[in-house]
Amino acid sequence: MYVSTNGTIKLKVPEGSNGVVVKNLYLSCDPYMRNLMKKPITENDDMESIDNPIIGFGVAKVLDSGHPSFKKGDLVWGNTKWEEYSLITNSQFLFKIQHTNVPLSYYTGILGMPGLTAYVGFYEICSPKRGENVFISAASGAVGQLVGQFAKLLGCYVVGSAGSKEKVDLLKNKFKFDEAFNYKEESDLDATLKRYFPEGIDIYFENVGGKMLDAVLLNMRAHGRIAGCGMISQYNLDKPEGVHNLMHLIYKRVRMEGFVVTDYFNLYPKFLEFILPHIAEGKIVYVEDIAEGLESGPSALIGLFSGLNVGKQVVLVARE
Amino acid sequence: MYVSTNGTIKLKVPEGSNGVVVKNLYLSCDPYMRNLMKKPITENDDMESIDNPIIGFGVAKVLDSGHPSFKKGDLVWGNTKWEEYSLITNSQFLFKIQHTNVPLSYYTGILGMPGLTAYVGFYEICSPKRGENVFISAASGAVGQLVGQFAKLLGCYVVGSAGSKEKVDLLKNKFKFDEAFNYKEESDLDATLKRYFPEGIDIYFENVGGKMLDAVLLNMRAHGRIAGCGMISQYNLDKPEGVHNLMHLIYKRVRMEGFVVTDYFNLYPKFLEFILPHIAEGKIVYVEDIAEGLESGPSALIGLFSGLNVGKQVVLVARE
Repeated sequence: MYVSTNGTIKLKVPEGSNGVVVKNLYLSCDPYMRNLMKKPITENDDMESIDNPIIGFGVAKVLDSGHPSFKKGDLVWGNTKWEEYSLITNSQFLFKIQHTNVPLSYYTGILGMPGLTAYVGFYEICSPKRGENVFISAASGAVGQLVGQFAKLLGCYVVGSAGSKEKVDLLKNKFKFDEAFNYKEESDLDATLKRYFPEGIDIYFENVGGKMLDAVLLNMRAHGRIAGCGMISQYNLDKPEGVHNLMHLIYKRVRMEGFVVTDYFNLYPKFLEFILPHIAEGKIVYVEDIAEGLESGPSALIGLFSGLNVGKQVVLVARE
Repeated sequence: MYVSTNGTIKLKVPEGSNGVVVKNLYLSCDPYMRNLMKKPITENDDMESIDNPIIGFGVAKVLDSGHPSFKKGDLVWGNTKWEEYSLITNSQFLFKIQHTNVPLSYYTGILGMPGLTAYVGFYEICSPKRGENVFISAASGAVGQLVGQFAKLLGCYVVGSAGSKEKVDLLKNKFKFDEAFNYKEESDLDATLKRYFPEGIDIYFENVGGKMLDAVLLNMRAHGRIAGCGMISQYNLDKPEGVHNLMHLIYKRVRMEGFVVTDYFNLYPKFLEFILPHIAEGKIVYVEDIAEGLESGPSALIGLFSGLNVGKQVVLVARE
């Protein structure tokens, strides 16, 4: 990979490889990354290991390519590593960036994995209908803020929960949710949800798990849907909290369905067609929280789990 | 309702009513009845009250009818009450029995509500495919024994759990499950399931909840389905047990869906068409546990919750 000439270092793909050498520009902090630092859950999981850079999504510039789909100078997003330069040998989740009239960092968020997650989670898993009552937890996060806006576009009543006044204000004023609340200030989440949803919840977009899920189950409406996207409140626990109200899945005939966005990357072109005009027309907005410098990465990632980020957490490694 | 002539009592429908007066023959003991003895979960629930007979499903003979669909002498099954004679004023769930070349008690089980429950739960909710791995809890019960047989008909690998050696033998020898185990003799349900499902579970038919569900979640396969039919282990608890492994719904992309059979009574004629030939040909068998006399009803009902019944629990009130 390294060829030294005249004291300079050139980064090149190994002879005969179909890999891609990139300069990393933005790295994405995503809750799922925490789970890759535990023991594997399925045999296929690409786990982190202590002696290698963290793996994750990011935006990068191609320096050299042995792959026919990518050439020097291309901007790409997808699976990369937490380092300045990476050799990407598995390009299954590497996409060439075609539209550059948006902030490049958007490809870690609204135009990247979290955007597609919100899109498939809401439209494919939640089976939403106009006028339904939608609740989103971790609603100002990378995925939640989009799900809420998609639900508003469809004419739903939308309520979000978040962990600070600043985030609640964002949900109501910037993302135009109908209502929002700070879960840290609510001592009885069941009562809180009954206040915002006197007729119950049709759709719950699940990002947190634990106590919030338990309270939601008590407030689901008949034939409701729960999209299981993440359970961030549980990732740092040795033993996840117990959820007690699952019988309500039966009483209310609720469908609860977990999904993983990597199953849906075939929908990415369709998603782009949908989302780009909405961004251009200002109908969908996106809030990012950008930490500067690779060295700020670890604290930015850890901050997700106490909600220090406001909006999508990104790490800026280098400007083009 | 009561007209006395010459010292005899005649049971008649009140003038102008479209009710039906019946003589109860068989009463059905079903786990859901326990929940109607708690405080209502939804406003529409028809709850039990202390000064009225228990409501439930049963088989009865019409003595008098103000309803155009029923006439004196008809045999019916559906919602009735735990008493010798009942006036049924809500005939939404009352069905005329057309086929009498089967034991009448079957209309409390395989040909009644539990049969339809097994049918819609398996075929509509589980989306089963030939060769899939199916696990059923409370597998020798009114519903479970049928789900297992349906799954075998489809060419699935089928394992059931039950609470005694007698029931395990029934599952393997009478219902032809591939495997069965006594959950009371297993100290580590996760390890037990890994033994029977080294490649994981595609379909879990959930009848018990709690610890069994938690162990199943650890053993679901990617894109698996869980049909939430009941959670009998939880009905007598003041606070249901916590279920800790729900994150596996996400990791494995599992759909868990609760259902209530009353939403599917429109499928009853289709179900009968399916099941009657299978019974006639001996391809589906059914085991009942019949308690004699209305006075044996309470202990028969209570026995469900410690698994005293072997097969579908029925109470014989009167022979025609």
